[in-house]
Amino acid sequence: MSTNDALVYARDHRDAFLEDLKELLRIPSISTLPEHSGDMITAARRLCERLRSLGVTAEIIEGDGHPVVYGEWLKAEETPTILLYGHYDVQPVDPIELWTTPPFEPTVRDGNLYARGAADDKGQVMTMVDAVESYLRTSSRLPVNLKFLFEGEEEAGGAVVEAYVRAHPDRLRADVAQVADSGMFARGIPMLETGLRGNVYTEVYARGAAQDLHSGLYGGVAPNPLNALGHIIAGLKDREGRITIPGFYDDVQMPEADVLRSWQDLPFDEATFLRDEVGASQLTGEPGYTPLERIWARPTLDVHGIPGGFTGKGAKTVIPGEASAKISMRLVPNQNPDKIFELFKSRVLELGSPGIQLDVQQHSAGRPVVVASDSRWIRAARQALRDTFSHDAVLGRSGGSIPIVALFAEALRLDTVLMGWGLPDDNLHAPNEKLTLDNFYGGIDSTIRFWGNLGKE
Amino acid sequence: MSTNDALVYARDHRDAFLEDLKELLRIPSISTLPEHSGDMITAARRLCERLRSLGVTAEIIEGDGHPVVYGEWLKAEETPTILLYGHYDVQPVDPIELWTTPPFEPTVRDGNLYARGAADDKGQVMTMVDAVESYLRTSSRLPVNLKFLFEGEEEAGGAVVEAYVRAHPDRLRADVAQVADSGMFARGIPMLETGLRGNVYTEVYARGAAQDLHSGLYGGVAPNPLNALGHIIAGLKDREGRITIPGFYDDVQMPEADVLRSWQDLPFDEATFLRDEVGASQLTGEPGYTPLERIWARPTLDVHGIPGGFTGKGAKTVIPGEASAKISMRLVPNQNPDKIFELFKSRVLELGSPGIQLDVQQHSAGRPVVVASDSRWIRAARQALRDTFSHDAVLGRSGGSIPIVALFAEALRLDTVLMGWGLPDDNLHAPNEKLTLDNFYGGIDSTIRFWGNLGKE
Repeated sequence: MSTNDALVYARDHRDAFLEDLKELLRIPSISTLPEHSGDMITAARRLCERLRSLGVTAEIIEGDGHPVVYGEWLKAEETPTILLYGHYDVQPVDPIELWTTPPFEPTVRDGNLYARGAADDKGQVMTMVDAVESYLRTSSRLPVNLKFLFEGEEEAGGAVVEAYVRAHPDRLRADVAQVADSGMFARGIPMLETGLRGNVYTEVYARGAAQDLHSGLYGGVAPNPLNALGHIIAGLKDREGRITIPGFYDDVQMPEADVLRSWQDLPFDEATFLRDEVGASQLTGEPGYTPLERIWARPTLDVHGIPGGFTGKGAKTVIPGEASAKISMRLVPNQNPDKIFELFKSRVLELGSPGIQLDVQQHSAGRPVVVASDSRWIRAARQALRDTFSHDAVLGRSGGSIPIVALFAEALRLDTVLMGWGLPDDNLHAPNEKLTLDNFYGGIDSTIRFWGNLGKE
Repeated sequence: MSTNDALVYARDHRDAFLEDLKELLRIPSISTLPEHSGDMITAARRLCERLRSLGVTAEIIEGDGHPVVYGEWLKAEETPTILLYGHYDVQPVDPIELWTTPPFEPTVRDGNLYARGAADDKGQVMTMVDAVESYLRTSSRLPVNLKFLFEGEEEAGGAVVEAYVRAHPDRLRADVAQVADSGMFARGIPMLETGLRGNVYTEVYARGAAQDLHSGLYGGVAPNPLNALGHIIAGLKDREGRITIPGFYDDVQMPEADVLRSWQDLPFDEATFLRDEVGASQLTGEPGYTPLERIWARPTLDVHGIPGGFTGKGAKTVIPGEASAKISMRLVPNQNPDKIFELFKSRVLELGSPGIQLDVQQHSAGRPVVVASDSRWIRAARQALRDTFSHDAVLGRSGGSIPIVALFAEALRLDTVLMGWGLPDDNLHAPNEKLTLDNFYGGIDSTIRFWGNLGKE
């Protein structure tokens, strides 16, 4: 067994790995849309077969939702066991008209692979699978023991994987978890994420009249759910970005001063970030904090969509009978999602309007998490990243939520190595999602080296 | 020529009139949706052919939009000339899933005809056409001269008909206008509308980032157009229903005290209205006014839809690059739509959020109007209604806007008789729109009598 042989194999098979990834990306496995449930099965089966073809024991775990693909390769005695995680589900694709090429027809342009799921997360899942292939096709051995947990509901609440993890702590026992669902700090600058925001995703339903009414004939007496939702949205966060839910910030614990200082030294240029990534007239957000602090260490609240009434082109004078607002909050240590949801709900109900019945529902929740950074796992990962990218890894955080990391910490008592291959401009959850090919191949190489480093110790 | 012969003919041909109306209702002539532009032509041609088949001179007038059907029958010397108006376009049908039977498959249930456009306005247009048929097929003469103006953009701004009216005041010269696009006060209680609210329909576009962004990775720094629209909506009308646009109420002129007093005597029961028509937990609206006052004599503001972001089922953590809010205001005498739009726009711009660019557009506008009620026209109409329904007509107002009435007053100096056949629970602009068959047939009879009364004088 040789890490070098695996690296040579990986380099020689880049084209094959790319074609194989494209096949997976052609499956429109959108977990939140019921009409794609058949595609979820297709994607799960493909991953399961791929693992089996390499000699990994793999099976499909059914649950009350989209299945989990579970696998094991446990023949490396007296070496650590790593629990690998990724997800094969993807986000919806609308607005479809803004895609340059169709979301499920993967296309390479300028060294990037464009497709829904390229970076989030199929491309990242395949870096781990391709690293396994690189070892097993060259020496039929892996330097570490691996357990594979690939879910299909990361974008949809993750109920099946959560139930499975909670029910099978012995089967999933490992020394550390490795999650491939994050990104580099910037092109050429790898990052290990040592903290993640949590989230609470809610929907506020507002109901007025028993049916849609004409605003000419009923305007002035019929309660309007959309006007009512406007008052609720305005009452949750002020125009500057300060959340106005009483008690919301009470449990926020900021990172230590030296961590905050180290972030000041990162190659982050606000003007460039504004221009290249956001493209708005200015950045906004909670006064008194830097942009990186606002993304990595401060909670926030965003409205994602307001279904109801007439949203087509032109004019329709309808007072909708009901409407809703999809609103999520990003949480930081030590905010508790359950407590935050209750505070949110109380505030929403305070902000109600006459004649409007409110119902506050929770779609999903994930705890914020901080990962111990001074460990053999992080040391092995930093070395692997330095050898692959010739650049020290940034020990950063992410504004995004990966609920599985909190679940691993809570249910399995596992630390997680968050080593990922996306870039900030990869258009996750937006049209023209991409994965840079250099990162895909670098991800495979880094993973090979990471496992090699742990096997040697 | 005999009014009685016409009435007998109308009674004998009710089934044929119903089948003919159904044919018109099967054409999905939704004027605001570009994909239905062919259906607009089909509906216009059908009306034009129908008039010609009766011996009315008729033509299709093209313009920059959907065509107008214009017709004339001018052989009744020394009698008044009436300019008839109705519209053959209909509202969109969403939410389609709430229709009991498909919107363009007219179906009779329990004495009602269900279809999009049944009451608004194809069924009402046909009461006039069928009254013409009833005279011309029995005596080949009409008791009055008629000009017909049927437009296809009432739900979409009415630009073509407005241009045509303004360009051809001589051709359209008449003694009075008759509009069939309103309703009865209640089942069995006819109404003549002597006032209509105007409206201004706007759309506020909010733009933040250059594209949709992931709320985990950008939440806290990216401006969110939906949060910004919430602040705007909340800043336009308070939770109780008082509009908070500075100067908005300045020009409002309430009806005289005796008119307001007469409304108190109408058979209007707030609890019944709430239960049967609105179906909410309570009525809402501007404090200090009765429900009829709030609908008939007070302006209001409603949000109709908020396109942008993710409005599907489930959860998507997107910060949309742009979103908009469709907001309209109903106006009363003597509010001026242009002035109100400027006040609205100024207020919206005051309510902006950092990083959000706002663009305020106007879809359509119509002036409020009050019709002189002490005239030979109204007397003839009251008599016709009393003879048909055995009940005195209520001299009421409507909360809805019929911009054509304001246009006739301004451009042609015409008063308008607003005699209509809808009912308050007809679900205009909503799923399961209907027209009560008794009202359809009563509308034909009333129209026959109205013209007969004017011819005799």
